[in-house]
Amino acid sequence: MEVLKNIDKVQNIVSKQLRDGKTIGFVPTMGYLHEGHIRLIKEARKENDFIILSIFVNPLQFGEGEDLDTYPRDEEHDRRMAEENGVDLIFLPSKETMYPGPLSIEMAVTKRTDVLCGRSRPGHFEGVVTVLTKLFNIIRPDRVYFGMKDAQQVAVVDALIHDYNFPIKLVAVPTVREKDGLAKSSRNVNLSTDERKEAPFIQQALLTGVQLMKDGKKLPEEIMDAVRKFLESKTHGNIDYIELLSYPELESVQTINQPVILAVAVYYKKVRLIDNIVFDQNGEIIKG
Amino acid sequence: MEVLKNIDKVQNIVSKQLRDGKTIGFVPTMGYLHEGHIRLIKEARKENDFIILSIFVNPLQFGEGEDLDTYPRDEEHDRRMAEENGVDLIFLPSKETMYPGPLSIEMAVTKRTDVLCGRSRPGHFEGVVTVLTKLFNIIRPDRVYFGMKDAQQVAVVDALIHDYNFPIKLVAVPTVREKDGLAKSSRNVNLSTDERKEAPFIQQALLTGVQLMKDGKKLPEEIMDAVRKFLESKTHGNIDYIELLSYPELESVQTINQPVILAVAVYYKKVRLIDNIVFDQNGEIIKG
Repeated sequence: MEVLKNIDKVQNIVSKQLRDGKTIGFVPTMGYLHEGHIRLIKEARKENDFIILSIFVNPLQFGEGEDLDTYPRDEEHDRRMAEENGVDLIFLPSKETMYPGPLSIEMAVTKRTDVLCGRSRPGHFEGVVTVLTKLFNIIRPDRVYFGMKDAQQVAVVDALIHDYNFPIKLVAVPTVREKDGLAKSSRNVNLSTDERKEAPFIQQALLTGVQLMKDGKKLPEEIMDAVRKFLESKTHGNIDYIELLSYPELESVQTINQPVILAVAVYYKKVRLIDNIVFDQNGEIIKG
Repeated sequence: MEVLKNIDKVQNIVSKQLRDGKTIGFVPTMGYLHEGHIRLIKEARKENDFIILSIFVNPLQFGEGEDLDTYPRDEEHDRRMAEENGVDLIFLPSKETMYPGPLSIEMAVTKRTDVLCGRSRPGHFEGVVTVLTKLFNIIRPDRVYFGMKDAQQVAVVDALIHDYNFPIKLVAVPTVREKDGLAKSSRNVNLSTDERKEAPFIQQALLTGVQLMKDGKKLPEEIMDAVRKFLESKTHGNIDYIELLSYPELESVQTINQPVILAVAVYYKKVRLIDNIVFDQNGEIIKG
């Protein structure tokens, strides 16, 4: 496994792979790899000849007051995990390599973004599509892998690929969870012991919402209210949002007669957790 | 030579070329090919295995009141010219193919744009970088060819490629001119007979400016004033701008001690013509 920090070197290796007729699977990450990432790598490994993992804590997608400085890092651990799971190349650029100077051309996300995490993280998805456009051009993958835990990210990347005709297949991989149901996240290490005990109720709250659907409730407001009451009774975290939207368009619905996403975000002391569930009008879970 | 309107088919052919280790040269145009385009095609032909020409009158780069509807078209002529000059594939998409719906992600050009043509054409370069990002992803060229006549476009494409790490070499090709010095342009056919007689004075005005430099004038204001007086005395067209800026940064300069561009735009009745000249502090012409 190679570990490269230099864009030109990665582009040269990519060119060689393409000339040799190899397919490239790409797993973009911010590092501190956990089982969710490993799941993405394993999926990529199944479907492609050459696997590239990027590790880059992209400052552009962090807002003021967000956890850029406390975002956990462990390069040694990441290298070992990547190698053990069949990554061929880690691209590990510095901030200066990715952003040598101010951009002359900026990207703005005008749909699928003023909801869920986008509402409370202005500029976040701009940062995501900017770095992904750069990474897509450096790595030129056939397939790119994202976890459904960041469902809004999946929806925005879907828009990026379609709007700009990237010759890349987006593969959305179901959320990997702890045994107690908590969605795996690099940020979970920043939960206190008590918070960690409460955090699994986030998924319980989502399942409560789906059960209401199955019991015949079709009004988004009713379901969101029930999820809120459940969460407020089970955790001390502050609810950032509870939303039920069409998926993947992420638009408000009056009644549930199509695939929807039920998504929540909860603030704890040092970390904000997100989770979601996508299901159809019969309450059948589609992904995640 | 193939002529394709379908994105998937082009992407398949491109994939095959890349697998076969062929280099791809790309000449993006809005059609109505003239000798300037042929020069680009010939340059591309020299340096690449497979030449793709795109013909697409991109509505996104035309502003309100601009000449989208009168922009000249002649598909038969274009096909013949392309074939005669060694193009392998023409990509000729419809508006609906390129823009099947509203974009979710938009691009904004924040530098090199609030001067020259960008000043009087708000949104123009946004349209240019949007369609080029799409075309770059469809065609995946090794090299892309632009004429220096659109020097600001060259500067903006240079920023696009660098900001977003497109693995593409930008080749800027000197302006091709009529015998009397008028820069070749598809729009020249929309000049009246009298206007056509006056139009060569545009280049004469630029050369007047360069001569002043050689004569020892180093103040941009002085040179621009002289160019304006010359143009006003020689043509009935309305001057849109006369500007002297650093190149390729396109920033104002106090005195000329680096490469600069002297550029003009003149409105005639049905058409607006542009021309430019790039030269160094000794008055030596660099390009175009």
